[in-house]
Amino acid sequence: MTTTEATPQVSAEELIKTTPLLQEIVRQLRAHDPYGTFRNWSDELILKPYVVTREQKKKISVDGEVDVITKSRIITFYRAIASLIEQETGLLSQVVIDLSHEGFGWVLVFSGRLLLVSKTLRDAQRFGFDSLEKLVAEGEKIAKSGIELGKKHGDVAQL
Amino acid sequence: MTTTEATPQVSAEELIKTTPLLQEIVRQLRAHDPYGTFRNWSDELILKPYVVTREQKKKISVDGEVDVITKSRIITFYRAIASLIEQETGLLSQVVIDLSHEGFGWVLVFSGRLLLVSKTLRDAQRFGFDSLEKLVAEGEKIAKSGIELGKKHGDVAQL
Repeated sequence: MTTTEATPQVSAEELIKTTPLLQEIVRQLRAHDPYGTFRNWSDELILKPYVVTREQKKKISVDGEVDVITKSRIITFYRAIASLIEQETGLLSQVVIDLSHEGFGWVLVFSGRLLLVSKTLRDAQRFGFDSLEKLVAEGEKIAKSGIELGKKHGDVAQL
Repeated sequence: MTTTEATPQVSAEELIKTTPLLQEIVRQLRAHDPYGTFRNWSDELILKPYVVTREQKKKISVDGEVDVITKSRIITFYRAIASLIEQETGLLSQVVIDLSHEGFGWVLVFSGRLLLVSKTLRDAQRFGFDSLEKLVAEGEKIAKSGIELGKKHGDVAQL
């Protein structure tokens, strides 16, 4: 038996309000807003560029270099993850990104000598998620794994 | 009592021949030589850009972005160190570099979840050493520390 009734969905506004990861991304973006561009923007609007549909991705060329704004969007995503890890483990970390001109590369989150997050990137020009829900699922998964590593190998993270 | 006789010094040629780190840098540079520029160059000539005297450094502006050649010279230095670490520990590693437009940043050598080398860079436009001997001393020191870490925390490097 199928039902036509939609499953009750949380509004984007509600999701953002209740999700620490999204809150942290917004906080970081607002903190690095030298010209006050975001001052009158809603959180939802600020987060909008993180949602890139499959159709939109197809239209983004991967031939050129990754532009500064996309790169900083990637870094902010991982900085927010680093912040979640810090809240759980107390470990302060650095985010480093190394992209070739073809959008391939690495993003690393590390504390001391421990890599809490280690990800290869490809087609970074197309960085984005199908939806905010997908962003949260992916980001929380990465954070969870980093938290476990940080707890298990705290000695290496303190080096 | 002072003597005017100079202490017997090794020639650059001899030093290069007998130093695994320098051999490895040369090997890597020759391996990435798409136009055969280095084919008729001596090892000493190929290594020459690594020697940048204090006077020369002063003349290099740190205002602009780090140029591609300097960046690749830095990466090659650390790749050679990574190779020394691999020979001693068996750990394969990646080299990642993240430089801001002002020549500040990080260079990391990692294996699994272990950072074998973690260095901040500043004024990377001026990357270089007073002499080949200084390069060897510095490079071998970094490699030694990486080898010790790799041996001590092999479990994290295998993650």
